[in-house]
Amino acid sequence: MNKYRLFAPGPTPVADEIALEMAGPIIHHRTKEFEKIVAEVRDGLKWLFQTKQEVMLLASSGTGAMESAIINTLNAGDQVIVVDGGKFGERWWKLAQAHGIKPEIIKVPWGEAVDPKEIETRLQTGKYRAVFVQASESSTGVYHPIREIAALTKGREDVLCVVDAISALGAVNLPMDEWGIDMLIAGSQKALSLPPGLAFIALSSKAWKFAESSKLPKFYFDLKRELKNIQTNQSAFTPAISLVIGLRKALEMMREEGLEQLFARHDRLARATREGMKALGLKIYAKVPVNSLTAVQVPEGMDAQKIYKILQDKFNMTIAGGQDAAKGKIFRIAHLGWFDDLDMVTVVGAVELALAELGHKFELGSGVGAVLKVLREKH
Amino acid sequence: MNKYRLFAPGPTPVADEIALEMAGPIIHHRTKEFEKIVAEVRDGLKWLFQTKQEVMLLASSGTGAMESAIINTLNAGDQVIVVDGGKFGERWWKLAQAHGIKPEIIKVPWGEAVDPKEIETRLQTGKYRAVFVQASESSTGVYHPIREIAALTKGREDVLCVVDAISALGAVNLPMDEWGIDMLIAGSQKALSLPPGLAFIALSSKAWKFAESSKLPKFYFDLKRELKNIQTNQSAFTPAISLVIGLRKALEMMREEGLEQLFARHDRLARATREGMKALGLKIYAKVPVNSLTAVQVPEGMDAQKIYKILQDKFNMTIAGGQDAAKGKIFRIAHLGWFDDLDMVTVVGAVELALAELGHKFELGSGVGAVLKVLREKH
Repeated sequence: MNKYRLFAPGPTPVADEIALEMAGPIIHHRTKEFEKIVAEVRDGLKWLFQTKQEVMLLASSGTGAMESAIINTLNAGDQVIVVDGGKFGERWWKLAQAHGIKPEIIKVPWGEAVDPKEIETRLQTGKYRAVFVQASESSTGVYHPIREIAALTKGREDVLCVVDAISALGAVNLPMDEWGIDMLIAGSQKALSLPPGLAFIALSSKAWKFAESSKLPKFYFDLKRELKNIQTNQSAFTPAISLVIGLRKALEMMREEGLEQLFARHDRLARATREGMKALGLKIYAKVPVNSLTAVQVPEGMDAQKIYKILQDKFNMTIAGGQDAAKGKIFRIAHLGWFDDLDMVTVVGAVELALAELGHKFELGSGVGAVLKVLREKH
Repeated sequence: MNKYRLFAPGPTPVADEIALEMAGPIIHHRTKEFEKIVAEVRDGLKWLFQTKQEVMLLASSGTGAMESAIINTLNAGDQVIVVDGGKFGERWWKLAQAHGIKPEIIKVPWGEAVDPKEIETRLQTGKYRAVFVQASESSTGVYHPIREIAALTKGREDVLCVVDAISALGAVNLPMDEWGIDMLIAGSQKALSLPPGLAFIALSSKAWKFAESSKLPKFYFDLKRELKNIQTNQSAFTPAISLVIGLRKALEMMREEGLEQLFARHDRLARATREGMKALGLKIYAKVPVNSLTAVQVPEGMDAQKIYKILQDKFNMTIAGGQDAAKGKIFRIAHLGWFDDLDMVTVVGAVELALAELGHKFELGSGVGAVLKVLREKH
């Protein structure tokens, strides 16, 4: 008997309270009762996004919201800067190309964060309409310096800063208005601890100005139409009702915890995991690790996929392996969303057992010991 | 104390068994366990669509799948025929225009079904690449003659028959392969009795040929990519996991009932509702009513919105009012999905109480009596 345990960077576990909430009856969306829920959700999302702008809800996965960012603000032939430091960076330029936009790709080696100077020098040419970047590059566990990047575009009316924060929002501080982020994107199945199927996007007033002149074809992802609808607590098309009901609960739980505590918890869980892994003689793959997940580099000669597989097959625990360039070299442990201190004891303990099975030399309990040391700060 | 009762044509009530299933833990989608669920769902959807083709799942509302039909098979400048007999017919040509496609609109008066001859004569010009139609036009309760329309395009390689069956599939017989439907679209929140957020689309081999030459920009709704993924029980982007888990249960329940019984049940519920309404001196709005929902025309001088409002406010029951041209003239009762015989007694009884409050002259119980007469056939 092994309980199912999910430590992947999305989908993340759904909080019990939320699952029960979503199991209640479906309310029709054109009713006052549902509009009341949307009103609460609107308010909660503005709080989470740290913005005065409306946050729009889309019934789609995060990629749908990424596509909406492009097709609502740009035109075919536009040139944009894309930070590509992993799988999701790649997605930005593939999305751009699919719509006839010309990406200038800043290739960042996997595991590294972009140097804002790389963006700054390119921006000086005045050729580019937007900078696309991930706050958390899930494939490498890297945090890109969003504050510094947003500062480069903040004073300028001709260029947008577009941030995919799908696996970051709610785990790390990303004050949209204060930093001057022009489009901020999130998904339900990460820090919000909801099932996948709902995505979020907010636009700055600068981005809304871009939207005025954008002529790319769109319908389902037409954000101007969604803006009009959300202002009356509605949506253009049938919303993902059960997820919106769960979202209200998720936001309520987050607000009870408070933004500062939320970020402090993610920071503590991330540090605990990193210290645990280092105590086992493993390396942290990301040069600038994000607090949402920890990508762990295994020693030469070891196959990281085997750790993934042992945890899956013997312990019914899903972590994530490495993708593409990092396949076999890393495994990834998520700690964003509905995770608490003792969950980190569990997952590091499981990794120890997997490492032992693979013949890795270390003292059993040393990883968990390092985790406990970090956790003791608080307890 | 009034229980919440939902009789709107989508979202429809979620079956208890499905709600509980979806409240279970979230399984990661890149696991064998989830792939096993997708494999079952694939099989079940082929059964429901009555096709040998793959049915693709999209994390979106039905409109997303409608847009995917257009952007995956056509090109800007293409001419198409659109049957517009209500709100959803309108959606087809608006979607087409958003992508630079030129719709020839066959305006059908609200409440009427299209005459296939209207399509036939236009098709003879050889100008058109596709015919777009609804199986069930939810705004009017009309069934368009899909079999006859599909027969017009069946023998031809140059034109597709595209059917929005969002509020029809599972309620009425639409054998995709046998009738020669080229694209068939459905949504989760109708006959499947799931929450909204999941849409379905299947393409005939002719439609897949069209896809080869389609150059409209797409990414999230790229069906070729989804086809490759579904063939390995995966999806290109994070799927709406909880809904897919619910879908397995929904399909299991439907298969237990059987296709013939499913259609017979919807036919019986529809006839019971129609007879009940007629016994109350009301008219059926649709000249050719679909078995998914019943649009009821109120007598001159009565405001149909008031019936909607009384049911909502006094009985906590959501039906649907009329939209646009039919606003105030009709109300709509759904009976697709998780509805049984006695539900029709409930809803017609509630309508009787609302009519009595509005001073309509009729004998209390006469509507329900007519419902019972139809139900007695079976019991």
